[in-house]
This record gives sequence, structure tokens and C-alpha cells, in this order.
Amino acid sequence: MKAVIATGLGEGWTIGERPDPSPGPDQVLISVEASGICYSDVQQLREPVYGCTFPRIPGHEAVGTVVGLGSGVDYLAMGDRVGVAFAQGWCGRCAHCALGRYHQCAVTKGTGVAVDGGHAEQAVFHAGAVEKVPDGLDPVEAAPVFCAGFTVYSGLRDAELRPGERCAIIGLGGLGHLGIQYAAAMGAEVIAVTRSTAKARQARKLGAEHTLVVESGRVGEELRRLGGVDVIVHAGNGIAEGSHLGLRPYGRMSLVGVSRDTFSLTPLELCFGNLRVVGSTQGPRTWLREVLELHRRCGAKTVVETYPLDDALTAFDRVVSGEAMFRAVLVPD
Amino acid sequence: MKAVIATGLGEGWTIGERPDPSPGPDQVLISVEASGICYSDVQQLREPVYGCTFPRIPGHEAVGTVVGLGSGVDYLAMGDRVGVAFAQGWCGRCAHCALGRYHQCAVTKGTGVAVDGGHAEQAVFHAGAVEKVPDGLDPVEAAPVFCAGFTVYSGLRDAELRPGERCAIIGLGGLGHLGIQYAAAMGAEVIAVTRSTAKARQARKLGAEHTLVVESGRVGEELRRLGGVDVIVHAGNGIAEGSHLGLRPYGRMSLVGVSRDTFSLTPLELCFGNLRVVGSTQGPRTWLREVLELHRRCGAKTVVETYPLDDALTAFDRVVSGEAMFRAVLVPD
Amino acid sequence: MKAVIATGLGEGWTIGERPDPSPGPDQVLISVEASGICYSDVQQLREPVYGCTFPRIPGHEAVGTVVGLGSGVDYLAMGDRVGVAFAQGWCGRCAHCALGRYHQCAVTKGTGVAVDGGHAEQAVFHAGAVEKVPDGLDPVEAAPVFCAGFTVYSGLRDAELRPGERCAIIGLGGLGHLGIQYAAAMGAEVIAVTRSTAKARQARKLGAEHTLVVESGRVGEELRRLGGVDVIVHAGNGIAEGSHLGLRPYGRMSLVGVSRDTFSLTPLELCFGNLRVVGSTQGPRTWLREVLELHRRCGAKTVVETYPLDDALTAFDRVVSGEAMFRAVLVPD
Amino acid sequence: MKAVIATGLGEGWTIGERPDPSPGPDQVLISVEASGICYSDVQQLREPVYGCTFPRIPGHEAVGTVVGLGSGVDYLAMGDRVGVAFAQGWCGRCAHCALGRYHQCAVTKGTGVAVDGGHAEQAVFHAGAVEKVPDGLDPVEAAPVFCAGFTVYSGLRDAELRPGERCAIIGLGGLGHLGIQYAAAMGAEVIAVTRSTAKARQARKLGAEHTLVVESGRVGEELRRLGGVDVIVHAGNGIAEGSHLGLRPYGRMSLVGVSRDTFSLTPLELCFGNLRVVGSTQGPRTWLREVLELHRRCGAKTVVETYPLDDALTAFDRVVSGEAMFRAVLVPD
Repeated sequence: MKAVIATGLGEGWTIGERPDPSPGPDQVLISVEASGICYSDVQQLREPVYGCTFPRIPGHEAVGTVVGLGSGVDYLAMGDRVGVAFAQGWCGRCAHCALGRYHQCAVTKGTGVAVDGGHAEQAVFHAGAVEKVPDGLDPVEAAPVFCAGFTVYSGLRDAELRPGERCAIIGLGGLGHLGIQYAAAMGAEVIAVTRSTAKARQARKLGAEHTLVVESGRVGEELRRLGGVDVIVHAGNGIAEGSHLGLRPYGRMSLVGVSRDTFSLTPLELCFGNLRVVGSTQGPRTWLREVLELHRRCGAKTVVETYPLDDALTAFDRVVSGEAMFRAVLVPD
Repeated sequence: MKAVIATGLGEGWTIGERPDPSPGPDQVLISVEASGICYSDVQQLREPVYGCTFPRIPGHEAVGTVVGLGSGVDYLAMGDRVGVAFAQGWCGRCAHCALGRYHQCAVTKGTGVAVDGGHAEQAVFHAGAVEKVPDGLDPVEAAPVFCAGFTVYSGLRDAELRPGERCAIIGLGGLGHLGIQYAAAMGAEVIAVTRSTAKARQARKLGAEHTLVVESGRVGEELRRLGGVDVIVHAGNGIAEGSHLGLRPYGRMSLVGVSRDTFSLTPLELCFGNLRVVGSTQGPRTWLREVLELHRRCGAKTVVETYPLDDALTAFDRVVSGEAMFRAVLVPD
Repeated sequence: MKAVIATGLGEGWTIGERPDPSPGPDQVLISVEASGICYSDVQQLREPVYGCTFPRIPGHEAVGTVVGLGSGVDYLAMGDRVGVAFAQGWCGRCAHCALGRYHQCAVTKGTGVAVDGGHAEQAVFHAGAVEKVPDGLDPVEAAPVFCAGFTVYSGLRDAELRPGERCAIIGLGGLGHLGIQYAAAMGAEVIAVTRSTAKARQARKLGAEHTLVVESGRVGEELRRLGGVDVIVHAGNGIAEGSHLGLRPYGRMSLVGVSRDTFSLTPLELCFGNLRVVGSTQGPRTWLREVLELHRRCGAKTVVETYPLDDALTAFDRVVSGEAMFRAVLVPD
Repeated sequence: MKAVIATGLGEGWTIGERPDPSPGPDQVLISVEASGICYSDVQQLREPVYGCTFPRIPGHEAVGTVVGLGSGVDYLAMGDRVGVAFAQGWCGRCAHCALGRYHQCAVTKGTGVAVDGGHAEQAVFHAGAVEKVPDGLDPVEAAPVFCAGFTVYSGLRDAELRPGERCAIIGLGGLGHLGIQYAAAMGAEVIAVTRSTAKARQARKLGAEHTLVVESGRVGEELRRLGGVDVIVHAGNGIAEGSHLGLRPYGRMSLVGVSRDTFSLTPLELCFGNLRVVGSTQGPRTWLREVLELHRRCGAKTVVETYPLDDALTAFDRVVSGEAMFRAVLVPD
């Protein structure tokens, strides 16, 4: 089969041929219909902390149909449309597993990082790692929900966004453009914050009631000028220094990117308004099911650029340069 | 001024003339634009437990513009559009007040029950009892949000409805028809449950994904047949016996009506699924603000029949007979 | 080895010999030091709903030391002191597992019900089903924490008991006598409710600030006379009809027994005080770890009667008759 | 009457004579039995941001008996023992009031800051600002609970400390020495963190299971070496840079001091463990009632140095120098 192959740390992608995979016990074989490219596909080539082993087929937000079942898999059937999440196998008994936060389990292997992922014609996954795609969701639409959507939704949930509140989404990429739609679907008034006028325009179409085109250092101040917000989700890379100052009393700020950028706070600022800062990664597996269902119901629209596998390198370059609007998705023929 | 007057327990309404009211300290005078009729307007004439004193101008969900300010009122201005909530004055220090649940405070006087309400051309209220109506909300649209909307939204909040969950609204009257819209706006999939085919049809237009036309005794069974629900809100009078059996594991059932109908449960049923049954009245005042904002944002539509004050008795009869679709609202000329 | 054997539905226990078990993959062999008798050991002989298969070694709260490790078990070592919880194996991906509530997973096998339990000299368990016993806890002390303690603690957690609140524990058996101590250790003022003067006396020694010796039908009324409570945990069999009327506003009542006794409520009663009724079974596995740690720290005392395996039938009779004070524990020689 | 008088910004205290106060409407006159000195008594003389007006009788944690009642006060009686909280009067309708967080209301006047406080023989307070002292609590014991105890307890509640968790209290002064006891009474294992060997010794007597004598920059590292903690409460002045690195996964860090010291975080650190940082001030009024009740029940011990009013300046100096162990309390004759 045809597949994208990441060859080594500090290197890039190539397109190659790999033997057709077949499912072992507790595994499932899928025929890939769509596989989204996440910015961490780029980072895992650059940063040893991601623990990627090589050569590796990347891709951790893929959707396809079940075309093979290993022994012991009785809750899936041939032809089911499923998507894959990041965690492949988990111990099922540690503190993380008991919260359903499987990707934090010490024994989990990351899809496309420690085991092969979805940027290929076919893929084999641990059957527990896949979730059914709700009827009515297109595969290209659905694929980015398994990482980008799940992650930004977790940021909203970790921030305990309530109906009727005001929410700023900072950074409009794969995560942010879905975050706008989810926050609106949860009953919030959304302010989209970006440095790009073009993205701001698009954000308004996706449901943002306000947009703020601003340099990152002035986000807090500008949010305050607009009356402040109850929730901030940092959906981009990096962190807007001082953005917490745009929170209203009892406000919550979720950090969903894993940046190393340092930011500063003072107790006075946080105490004054009973503010909370929360580090958020993907939440419990139940939240993935919630967001798939929410995505379907609210008519959220994943804005994508699609590429055949043969053009994966072009797609990759678009992601590296930050030009993809808003998610690049590989679509095997 | 012209006003509806409730003359005594066991009696009905008359239309009469009353002196124009003027605001005392900490009070506000409003020129009434719309005043919704709640089913408890009927019940307070029948049930001594409501504590209504007579003669009394009823009406506890009125909207109007500020035309007079008593001394000490500095957070409202002439011309502001405001609505009135049920609680008039509260001690500000008891356990209820410290939760913002002012209507449960022992010293609160109920609007239209212990002090005059909004079914009149003008009304005087404790300035703390009113909330500003968000820009863009029509007065007739907004009035029922101050009781019907606030109450059913509180039921959804007390049930901790989450995005992507499935929610049944049982009973489609003033509360229920708003509950459908709020639950959908909070990201839920809604099943409207009613005995009326006509109401079911309307429910679908308001955003219910499914409707269930069923006798109350069979609600639990029918919900289970549809796959169960995560949340049930009883928005009608009475209670559907056995409806909790339609809950999925970890399901929550909110009772928002104050019926005396007895219903039965067994520990086995509740334990099996970790189910919760919650008695819900109007929540904290912050929730009223949330629902006003949510109502505006999600484009919820209060479906009303309007009547001039002179036709208040016709409107009253429609409410008594349960024929009003879905809320009767008095509109002084 | 010597073991208790449950021979069939409607029958009782015998003491017999069984081949020494040996651990398969992912299993652990323990040398049993103590194994508590739960009232459901009795009920699973009577009620088909428990799904017990026969012949069966019962016992689902056993503590012992690891004397054998199957392949794939790397987080336990020979000599570790562990206890066993009810759930043996679980799918690790359903909605229950994602909440850590493994005993509700459809594929879980109940310890001592569908697979052999701890009333024997040795036992083999799924390695994921055991938890380490904290240093400093005696095995006889610890065994009942794995079911009785875990269950009643879950009732307190599901009721969201807060420090400084008032909590009634209704029913003083294996669960209740631990519930008193846990509630006190969580900062609550405890009222122990029982029909037995002798048990009431003991309850006071265990930390109950008040005791109420009363027939079940009058519990609500008597609690109200004492000023009401914020939380009620029904830790006995059955349910005290009307006990919810003893709740203060915003009160929560947990039902931790799986009785079929019907009880009645009215919406009016629940709404009036924003009351909650919660069906509670054992919570997430994280709560088992919490309660083990809490038990150790607060110096809780499991009051037991101990019996050698040979006297298991005497112990069983004490549990049937409700005379055991408060937990009968089998202690193999 | 005799009173402490703060004469101006940048100045100190004097002891003087003031006319005996008498209660106006909604006010209460108390004969002061004990009045604790908080470090903010010092800061309000130095920092204009506290908004103190002069001359002013300071003291915002005083306990005494009611010796006079203004008109309209019907929930207190002559002879009641009460304590005073920081907030004097509040609007009763803003977002803060609706959460019971009265001290954040814009119109509240701070006790001892904007209106006279408790460092005197007698004091007049807004009747809503006082709470009854539970029977069995000594006035000297109780006074510091109204600020120090309430504040540090709010930090524990805002951090959502659960039974069986591990909690570090950083900084052992008036707040910290109570925080140790409250955390233990809530079922947690407590690590007391201080720079003082003498204080560490005392902390152990108050219920800390572990103590850590360490310079502030090494707190995170040392906590990690001890296995990490679930909750950190910063109860001292300033903030231990990097202390959040001592949190276990899902850990929460409460900041209860209002320091301007900047500290640094990175999203990576917070995301990795789903950590939360919370700014905490005094919580809802209901939490004050909870902590008073908890303090009484758990036998918490306020460790104080007492001084007659005439020695108030000596007491003040002890607080300024940080030598008071752990709270200096004025006791009028």
C-alpha cells in the first residue's frame, strides 16, 4: 500500500510503499478515507520529547471503514465507519485510565508516533482506540474532530464554559476554527482573536460574534476594552502574555497547546478576580464521544484543504508555513 | 391606571382601576410593555400554600421601561428596559441569599403574590428585583423568560446537561417549549414528550430532533425504546410515573413543577444506573442573566398569544384550560 | 486448599477442599489473610438477579499477600499486600470504564459471583482487580474497606458531602459503622440512625456526635426535630420512607443499598428545598484508593468478629441474622 | 472607649479615646472580647491600593457579644456572641453577591479599612456582616477564624481538596497554621512547608504528617522528591517560584495571598499534568459558616499571643517582624 513515511528526527516525509497490514488480536484494519495533518506531525520530527520512533507512518486523526477484524473484537463490524484517537492501548487501571484520560497512561503508545498512524491507504489500530463516526458525518469532515476537535473541546470543558457566557478563542488554526463553533454551540458568545484579517473574516462566518485582530501582547487589554470574557482558550501555538488580564471575575483560561513559552502571572491579578489557569490536554474518552455528537448536531463545519496521498508533501509544507485554512486533510484515492 | 385584580382565594380576576403607583426608596416604576401569565397565576387563587394576599395585582414575568426611580437607585436609568423576577427584596445574608437563590429567602415577597405584580399599565418593583433586558430582545419575547424561561433553564442547569447529551423535555407548555430550545442551544439532542400531536409538530419546529406522543405512564418505556436519555426535565404539571426508567446510566431527572403528585422509586433502579433525581426551582440570579443572554444569542422564540389588558379574562381562561400555545401575554396599550 | 463453597441458588455454604489455584496471564495468586462477609454473600444465594454461578467460592473483600504472578503482571511483586475489589476484568473502553466505574462494565465478572472469590486459603485474581494495601493497615482491618468501606464512601462522595455539613448515616452495619467514621473524617457532624440502642452506643464511640434510635417510618420527622441534615446516606437494607423530609435545603440523599423497596416522593417536597436523591454504587477506582488512604490516615476502626475458615458457617449465620457487629471476617489459619 | 487608631498612610498606630459608638438602623453594637491582627493591618498603612481612609480603627476579625441592636435587626439578640467578617454592606444583586462573595461587591466597605473595625472596646457593625460564633468556641480561639481561617479554608475549597489526597501548605503564619489543621480535618495528608525549623516542629503537633524546611526556590523539586502533592495552598506572603512543579497530575494550586510577586509558568508544564492554578480570596459567606463549624468539630487550635489593648503597639511590632506565633490577638479588658 501507499503511505507517508517519516524517516527520522530532523528529517521530513517521503511517500513510499509498505506491505499491506493485517490485524492481530484486539486490532482492527481500516481502509483510510481521510487523515488530517496536525501541527504536531511537524513537531514530532523536530522535538525528541514527542518520543517518535522511525521510520514511522504518521497521522493520528484518521477516519475509515472497517475492512478487517482481529480476534476478540466483538463490538465492531465490517463496514463500520470509525475514527482513531491518539492513545493505542492503555493499562486500564492507573489513575489516568480511571479518569478515561487514556492518552496520559504510561503504557499507551501514540498513534503515528510509537505505532503507525493514518497517513496511508490502510491502517491497523488497537480496536479500543477507535470510535464510531456518527451517521451523517462525512469522513473528511470527521477526521479532524478526532484530534483538533477533541482537543479544543477539552479546553472548553476544562474551562467549564457555561451557556450565556463570553468566550475568547485565541489562535485560529485547526483547533481554533472548531473551537469557535463548539463554543457557540454550547451557548456562548464568541470572540475570535487572531493576527490575520483574513482569518477574522472567516471566523465571523463560523459563528464568532466579535473578532479581534491584534498582536499577542495586547490581547488582555483589548479583551478588557470589549468588556472582558469569562473563558479564554489558547488554541494556537504559544501563549499571549498578559491575556489573563482580559478575564472577567471568576474567569477561566485554558491552555491547550503544549508550548514551552514562559508566561508570567502575579497572585494579585489572579486573586483579585478569582481567576483560574488550566492546563488542558485531551480529556476523558467520553468527551470525544460528546464532541462527535455535538459536531454532528450543531452543524459544525471543518474547513479543510484536501490532498491526495501523492501530494502529502505539499500539504505538509502548508502546515509548516501556517497557511493551511484551517486543516489539511489527506484523502487516499 | 388599568389593572388586573385578583379578588380573593377561590375567586377569579376582574379588570379595574387603581391609583397610579409611585416608587419609594430603592424602588423603580415601570411602564409595562408585556406581562406573561404563568400557570401559578391560576394556582395562587386556589391553593393557600402560595400565600397570596388579596386584593392583589398578579403577574410575575413583566417587562417594561423605567419611568420613575426611587431614592437610592443608581444602577438603573430612565428609559432602561427591564424585566421583573419573582423575588422582591431579600435579607442578603441567609444561606439562600449567599447562593443567589433569592426567591427562597424567608423574607422575600413574591411578585404578584405578596406585593403587586405586572398585569397592569404600570408597576412599582424593588429595584434589585429587576434585570435589564438585553438589547435586541422584544418585550413580548422577553417577558416569559423571567419566569418560564428562567425556571426551565434552571432545571437544565440543576441536571447538569452537557453538550452532546440527549435530553427529554416532558410537557410542552410555557416552560417546555422554551426548554426544548435552550437544551438544543446547550448542544443537546432533544426529545420532546407530549400527549398532543399538535404540540409535537410545533416542538419539531422549535428544535426537537425527536418527538414522543405518549400517555404519561408509558414515558419511561418509550424513552428506553428510543435508546434512553441522559437528562429528563419535567416541565409540565404533575410527573410521569416511571419516567426515570428512561434514563441512561448516570442520568439526571429534574423536577421543575411543584406538584403534589406522588411518584415511586426503588433504590435498585437508581443504584443500577447511578441515577439522580433533583428538585429544581429557579436557580441563582446569575442563571437568569445567563438565560436572558442565551435566549438572545440562540434566537430562541417565545411562542405567545397576546391580549390587551381588557381581554385578560379571556387569556386567563386559555391558561386554565391549557389551550394557550404556549404562553399568553398581556400587552397594555 | 480449604475453601467455602456456595453450592447452588437457594442453598447455603459448605466447607470443602479445592485444588490449589495457579495464576494465568495477567493474574495474581494471593495467600488470603482476611476475607470479609458482605450481606450480598447472602443475597447472591437467594436472588437470581445477582447472576451467581455455582459451585462458587464467594468473597469479594479479601486481603492477602502476593505469592504468585502470572505473565504480564509487572506492577506487583511477590510479597505485596493487596486487596481485591469486585470487578474482575473490564473492557476498558465503554462509558463506565471511561469513568473508572469498572464494576458497571458489561463484561466485568464479579469476584465471588462469576469467578471464585476470597473465602479460601488462596485465590487467583485478575491483577488489575487488586489494589495495594497502604502500609500500616492490618489485613483484617483492611479487608472490609474493599467493599463495605468503598461502597459507603462512594455514597458520601456521590452526595458531595462538604466539611462542616451535617450528615445522617441510616443503618449501622458493615457499611454504616465505617460511614460514620469517614463522614467525621471528612469534616462533617454525624448523626447515626438505628433501631438498636446497643448500636447507637457504639456509634457514639466511633465518632457520631448524635444518635437517633427510631423506627424507620419516623426518621424524616426526627431528623427535622434535630435541625435537619445536609446529607443522608442510606447504608442499611431497605429505605426509610419519608427520610428525605429530614434534609435541609440543598440536601442530598444517597441510596447505597440495592433494595427493591419502593419509596415515595413528591415534586413539591424536592423542589421546595432543591433536594437531590442519588442512587450510588461503588464509584471510580480512584475512590477506592482515596478511601484506603483516608481509612489509614483518620485511624478509622473496622469493628469485626473474626472466624477461622472452619467456622465460616457460624459467621454466615451471624450475617444472615444481622447480629454481626459490625462485620464478620474469615481469617484462614 | 479605648481604641487603636491608625492615623495615616505611611504612619503607624496609636492608642486613643473615642466616643462610645451606638448602632444605627441595621447595625449592631458589640462589646469586643478578642480582635486578631492580620498582616493586612500592616499593609493597609503602606499600600494605597487597600483604600484605607484615616483616622481609622483597624481590625477585621473581631469577636464579641451583642450589647446593642439598631432598628430592623431581628435575627440577633442581646448577648449573642458574634464575629465580624470583612464585608460591611453589599448591594445584594451583583454577580459577586449572587455567589455570596460579598467582599468583592463594588459597594462593600471593608471592616477596619473604610469603616471602623474591632481593635477597640466596642464596635458597631452592619448586622449582616456578623455571624454567630458556634457554642463551645472561645472568643480568642474564634476571632482569627473570621479572616485567617476563612481565607485559608477558601483556598482549600477553591482547590477542591478531596479526602485521601495529599496537600502542601506553604507558609506557616496565621493562615498556614490553621490551613494545616483544616486540610487534615478534611481527610488529607498534610505537608507543611516553611523556612523555619521551629515552625516545622509546631506544624507537626498541629497535624502535619510531613514537614519540609526549605528555601522557596526549591519547593517544587523537594515536593516532587517526596512523591508530589495533589493540592498546594500558598498561605504565606509571596509565592514560591516553581512550586507548581511539585504537583501530581490533576493537581491544583491555590494562591491566597495578594502578592505582586511575578511567577512564571509554561503551558507545557500545566498541560502535561492537567494542572490548575487558582487565585483565591475569601469565598462565599456559606464557607465562613462551614469553617466555623469545621473548626469547632475538628478541635482545631488557633495558636495565639494575646495582648491587652494597651499593648497593641507591641503586638503590631510582632506582626510586622513576622515573629508572632501564629496570630497576635488583642483582648480588651
